[in-house]
Amino acid sequence: MTTKTKEVPLNFEHRTRRSASEARPVYGFERWLLKRLLKTMRDPPLTISLWNGEQLRGCAQRSDVTLHIRNPQALWGILANPDLYFGDAYSDGNIEVEGDLLRMIELATLHKPQLVGETGPLGLLIRLLAPTPRTNNLKASRHNIHHHYDLGNDFYQLWLDHPYMQYTCAYFPDPAMSLEAAQVAKMEHVCRKLQLKPGDTVVEAGCGWGGLARYMAEHHGVTVRAYNISQEQVRYATEKAQASGLAGKVEYIEDDYRNVTGEYDVFVSVGMLEHVGRKNYRDLGGVIDHCLKDNGRALIHSIGRNAPRLMNRWIEKRIFPGAYPPALSEMMDIFEPYDFSILDVENLRLHYARTLEHWLQRFEEHRMDVTEAFDERFLRAWRLYLTGSVSAFKLGDLQLFQVLFSRGGDNSLPWSRKYIYYQ
Amino acid sequence: MTTKTKEVPLNFEHRTRRSASEARPVYGFERWLLKRLLKTMRDPPLTISLWNGEQLRGCAQRSDVTLHIRNPQALWGILANPDLYFGDAYSDGNIEVEGDLLRMIELATLHKPQLVGETGPLGLLIRLLAPTPRTNNLKASRHNIHHHYDLGNDFYQLWLDHPYMQYTCAYFPDPAMSLEAAQVAKMEHVCRKLQLKPGDTVVEAGCGWGGLARYMAEHHGVTVRAYNISQEQVRYATEKAQASGLAGKVEYIEDDYRNVTGEYDVFVSVGMLEHVGRKNYRDLGGVIDHCLKDNGRALIHSIGRNAPRLMNRWIEKRIFPGAYPPALSEMMDIFEPYDFSILDVENLRLHYARTLEHWLQRFEEHRMDVTEAFDERFLRAWRLYLTGSVSAFKLGDLQLFQVLFSRGGDNSLPWSRKYIYYQ
Repeated sequence: MTTKTKEVPLNFEHRTRRSASEARPVYGFERWLLKRLLKTMRDPPLTISLWNGEQLRGCAQRSDVTLHIRNPQALWGILANPDLYFGDAYSDGNIEVEGDLLRMIELATLHKPQLVGETGPLGLLIRLLAPTPRTNNLKASRHNIHHHYDLGNDFYQLWLDHPYMQYTCAYFPDPAMSLEAAQVAKMEHVCRKLQLKPGDTVVEAGCGWGGLARYMAEHHGVTVRAYNISQEQVRYATEKAQASGLAGKVEYIEDDYRNVTGEYDVFVSVGMLEHVGRKNYRDLGGVIDHCLKDNGRALIHSIGRNAPRLMNRWIEKRIFPGAYPPALSEMMDIFEPYDFSILDVENLRLHYARTLEHWLQRFEEHRMDVTEAFDERFLRAWRLYLTGSVSAFKLGDLQLFQVLFSRGGDNSLPWSRKYIYYQ
Repeated sequence: MTTKTKEVPLNFEHRTRRSASEARPVYGFERWLLKRLLKTMRDPPLTISLWNGEQLRGCAQRSDVTLHIRNPQALWGILANPDLYFGDAYSDGNIEVEGDLLRMIELATLHKPQLVGETGPLGLLIRLLAPTPRTNNLKASRHNIHHHYDLGNDFYQLWLDHPYMQYTCAYFPDPAMSLEAAQVAKMEHVCRKLQLKPGDTVVEAGCGWGGLARYMAEHHGVTVRAYNISQEQVRYATEKAQASGLAGKVEYIEDDYRNVTGEYDVFVSVGMLEHVGRKNYRDLGGVIDHCLKDNGRALIHSIGRNAPRLMNRWIEKRIFPGAYPPALSEMMDIFEPYDFSILDVENLRLHYARTLEHWLQRFEEHRMDVTEAFDERFLRAWRLYLTGSVSAFKLGDLQLFQVLFSRGGDNSLPWSRKYIYYQ
């Protein structure tokens, strides 16, 4: 993505002013279609402003936001394929939102028109025609991960927490906590659930910039082998660990989770399952089955859904290639074939909404840096992605599951989960 | 079952002494088959004693228990269909266990012979031929429930806790707690998870002898409508509530959960799902969807499995007709079609093993009363069922899941589960 946007730099202002079709009038049937759309959406408090300056409203008493559609292409794009096209048109500036972008996305979600609904014969057809997410074989996984995570450590440092750089849901036992405190609380929450004790060996699948592995070694006296296929992240993580004097305690390995070797007391994976791909869950379970000792504890932390559904197509295509947030029923493919026993599932949905609000705020504070490093289109795409994610977690479209599990026959279980909350 | 055993009273001692075939010798191929069985079981520390006094051992150094097989029918029964026949032969006294019955069951589970394994073509065949549990339409449900729960309140009072009569898993935050304290702790645990507050309306599906409903009304100031199709239980529960001055707060209704009407702040079901039947989960979800308010909280407490598997056939046939403990993947059929959001899953497997140990101890203390009220066969069947259940929960063959959930869009969620543990 970095390369592409740098090769074809698009000047946002320039582009939106030049489009030839902006000059043509709005046709009668376009007006009719838009009015029908607003009606099907049960008249959200929304104004649609067209390229000729014409404004359309449903029967709503008030209007919270105005959606500017800059040209006919953008109009037809979002009519034909709203999930995919809205993001592109917004990124390119062919759609503009006047007012609160989060409110606009929430309205679109809450008033989702039946035209793109998921029930009925039309919905069935849409689902049949929908492309499946890209496959995640070893090579494709590398490509997909590079797409997102190798945008450059500098970029993520602008808006993630310091010093742990957690690009995953934080934990806010008090919602007023700072992002930094909440990310530490998340790591501590995970460590407590896993009952880490000094000397334990831990394997981590998908370690990001290595923050959790470092935290575990520093604060719980364990040794960690952490796997990641992102070269930039592994380099950063290794340097950080060396600088913190943890070289002997934490080892970062640039390799796929499927190549994990050895036996460990603890398996942990925070924010990787989203990239594993539905059909690889059984294999992931097999990897854990191979590497977990008899009394081992394991935790998977992942974005999920209340029921199986495809990822938003624009995010899947432009932001997270190959990503898929599973429903719990789907996630069970990891555990059931190997007689793993689910001990504890916690849903941290609202914590991710709060995390994303923090990220979005910091991202906006650094928007000049982002535009300078990439371009306006990149800035807008990421703004939309972060804002859309706040909305998805707030409205319950996405969940965040922490699943703690062990082998089926392990009886060394605590009698109460109090140990997670007291110390 | 009450009726049946009373109509055809079998005198245990009488029966075991009279069998004509006890006189015949043990054939060579019977001996060979048993030795092969012991070998396939990887030589458990077990002695088999046959009807002619002959004793067989595998290569194990020691023997923890002796299994007496009193006649050839019993031998061939357990060879052909061990899951089903062992229970019947034990109940009838045609099989006897010298030593610890729990140890015997654990050995049979841990050393499960491949002959009756669930993998490979033979296992597949066995599963194909296995009868599906009886269907649970409204009429069949009533029959199945009468079978088990209308054995008489007197019977259950012998060995359940007082005064709440909970025939479901207790909660032992301290494993040394008494059964009474642990059953109260369980109810309080459920109430806390559900965040009951005075004035809340609660609907309970499958209320047993009404203990939880009374506890909720007494200690949390809520009003409860509790459904149960067992006539004896509903009568008992109603009398108890009236005697406790809770007549206006708790209402017991002799009806099926599918006939629940009204809207409630809370849905709760403790120990009913096991009797609902796999194919009715979606309907159960529909019932909850109908009766739960927008910000409602709901909890299902049920025996479950790490992966889908049929119930032990003897228990399904003789003790709990129509029962099925689901895997979490199967349970999701309740939630996913209605966009319910799983908030918290807790596995209390070891708590059920401990609960059953308490029940078994009290049951044995009252064995004379049980034999008097029923007969020796009934006593032995229930002893086997309770002991087998201790083993199943200890060895991880069965799980106990508490699943807390709410509607997908409800954002009035607590930020931490601390509230369950502090007060």
